[in-house]
Amino acid sequence: MKVGIVGAGSIAFGAAAYLENAGHRAMLWSPSGERTKRLATGEALIASGALEGTFHPAVAGSAQQLVEANDVLMIALPGYGHKAVMDAIAPFIREGQAVLISSHASFGALYLNRLLAERGIVVPIVAWGTTVTTGRQPSLVEAQVNTVRSKVDVATVPESLSAEGLSVCQTLFGDRFVQRDGILAIALSNLNPQNHMGIALCNMTRMEHGETWPQGLNVTPNVGRLLEELDRERIAIAEALGLKVRDIFEHFHLSFHVPKDSVSAMNQEMHREGRGGTGPATADSRYVTEDVPFGLLMTVKLGELTGRPAVLHDAGVRIFSAMYGRDFAAENTLLDAIGMSDLSLERLRQLARDGFEVSTEARAAS
Amino acid sequence: MKVGIVGAGSIAFGAAAYLENAGHRAMLWSPSGERTKRLATGEALIASGALEGTFHPAVAGSAQQLVEANDVLMIALPGYGHKAVMDAIAPFIREGQAVLISSHASFGALYLNRLLAERGIVVPIVAWGTTVTTGRQPSLVEAQVNTVRSKVDVATVPESLSAEGLSVCQTLFGDRFVQRDGILAIALSNLNPQNHMGIALCNMTRMEHGETWPQGLNVTPNVGRLLEELDRERIAIAEALGLKVRDIFEHFHLSFHVPKDSVSAMNQEMHREGRGGTGPATADSRYVTEDVPFGLLMTVKLGELTGRPAVLHDAGVRIFSAMYGRDFAAENTLLDAIGMSDLSLERLRQLARDGFEVSTEARAAS
Repeated sequence: MKVGIVGAGSIAFGAAAYLENAGHRAMLWSPSGERTKRLATGEALIASGALEGTFHPAVAGSAQQLVEANDVLMIALPGYGHKAVMDAIAPFIREGQAVLISSHASFGALYLNRLLAERGIVVPIVAWGTTVTTGRQPSLVEAQVNTVRSKVDVATVPESLSAEGLSVCQTLFGDRFVQRDGILAIALSNLNPQNHMGIALCNMTRMEHGETWPQGLNVTPNVGRLLEELDRERIAIAEALGLKVRDIFEHFHLSFHVPKDSVSAMNQEMHREGRGGTGPATADSRYVTEDVPFGLLMTVKLGELTGRPAVLHDAGVRIFSAMYGRDFAAENTLLDAIGMSDLSLERLRQLARDGFEVSTEARAAS
Repeated sequence: MKVGIVGAGSIAFGAAAYLENAGHRAMLWSPSGERTKRLATGEALIASGALEGTFHPAVAGSAQQLVEANDVLMIALPGYGHKAVMDAIAPFIREGQAVLISSHASFGALYLNRLLAERGIVVPIVAWGTTVTTGRQPSLVEAQVNTVRSKVDVATVPESLSAEGLSVCQTLFGDRFVQRDGILAIALSNLNPQNHMGIALCNMTRMEHGETWPQGLNVTPNVGRLLEELDRERIAIAEALGLKVRDIFEHFHLSFHVPKDSVSAMNQEMHREGRGGTGPATADSRYVTEDVPFGLLMTVKLGELTGRPAVLHDAGVRIFSAMYGRDFAAENTLLDAIGMSDLSLERLRQLARDGFEVSTEARAAS
């Protein structure tokens, strides 16, 4: 299949390498064009690590070109870029195309669904709970792929197109997808925001000094307890919604193959085994700039809607905003764009299932 | 004069050395007796640093002995010990004795005033905004005095006894006291809780690992901005109360003689000059265990009373509680004991000025 990838960072490069390696065709589009300029001149993309090879993904000069030239679209950039790229691609999407969001944040699937509904169009929009690949981008022609995950949670908006959405994922990336019970479950299955909140708060001066610091080692007992309490807030919201999600203990146990213990003890064990990773070496990290406005804030909003206030998540949004001199709550334009603050829980559940009502006038005109 | 000191930590030892050096007589009482046992056998107290000498303060075997044998009492231990020692000494206090609280926390002056009012007794209870001496306690016969402060803010409950309270302070510790506009002003003049909140949060893993870390250097730009925002909450409450208090910029400028700049820049300058100090090398630090329940929480309560919610202070109370697995708000028994949550602002102002109504029956019986 031909896949148009929106974004040109480490996840977009990893996806391009994966797809080309699997016999599909990948085309990259970077809104600024900066990150694709070397590939656009014909240089090869060299993948190393969990996936090796030399590839020649195409480069799109515009959103329109990307959408028109491909069968499937994949959004692969941080949550703070989602609204702008959805605005850019939505006018050109046609019936029959699928859109994959890797990974989904702050109900972006609903926002894109609404843009399309206003045009009278419905396509499967597949929300991924996390990325298929992890890695870094040593240069603008290299993809260092650290992991290809064996399990990725997915849900499709509208749910009536779930089978189609899942099929596209499997065709492109193989048998690694777990169908979840809607995008509310996807939203609450992502533990990064809460975990990154505790880790970043308690290691902030290490980040600002640009230290190289072992992350597992620095999930100390106090950090671990904070993460466990944050997790209780998330679980309480999931329970109120009747959704079953993994708790933080299962998360670390399953993702990192360490015996179940306190969160701090599991991280210390990961560190001893050399698998604890390193923490961000700059305050300008997605641990904060993406996860606070597009992760913590979303949990706060779901807490309000379900009557299970996420007070620690809210405390994080406020403290990071003070630290950075930014109003992180205001930076999330996706939640505003779907009218989150005016939605009832019932309406949100219905939107998550069915998507926005399609404009019949627009459908007739399209 | 004869001064009975409640406590036997670094501040109590420093005060004993100061008083003996100035020709007064000091007697120490430690509730557990542990910290006074070497002095009780006749070993000398050796002071070094800003104050040098060899002294022989007396040791009391009980609260009753301490109160009965002295003219003035001084409470010199962390806020979390205040209620218990006030309960212990209150039954024995007599008219004419003054009580100094070094330093005042969470309206402890009102709590002690109420215990005495119930006995029909009124004495000057002098709330200090900070300690006269700073220092450490290298052993149980040593007082390392780092500083003798040139200015200490004070206020007396009831305010009608202010002149008497101030006179006692000056007689004992010299001309360094600044009469402030009541204990509400004293409460809001202490910047330690807010500053320690930001410093401890953002350096928590350094504390837990027992690192030796330069505190000034680790008031990084994000930490400094958080402290400035916390300070705005405190200043807003003071303004609502019509009280003038120094802001954080004046605080660092006046206390550490660095040019006015951002809080981070002033701390970096203190570090360059070798005066930035070192941060706590354990999570079991008064930066948290005293300042969260007896400092941050008090500001939160004042914020509620004045309609200027201290949301960042509140966030700190919640996050530290989660980290430590303790309900720090519940650990403050002083605020509960004065019925803080049921007080109107007007009643609190009146109590701060006049103290609790004296039981006339008790007065007649006493």
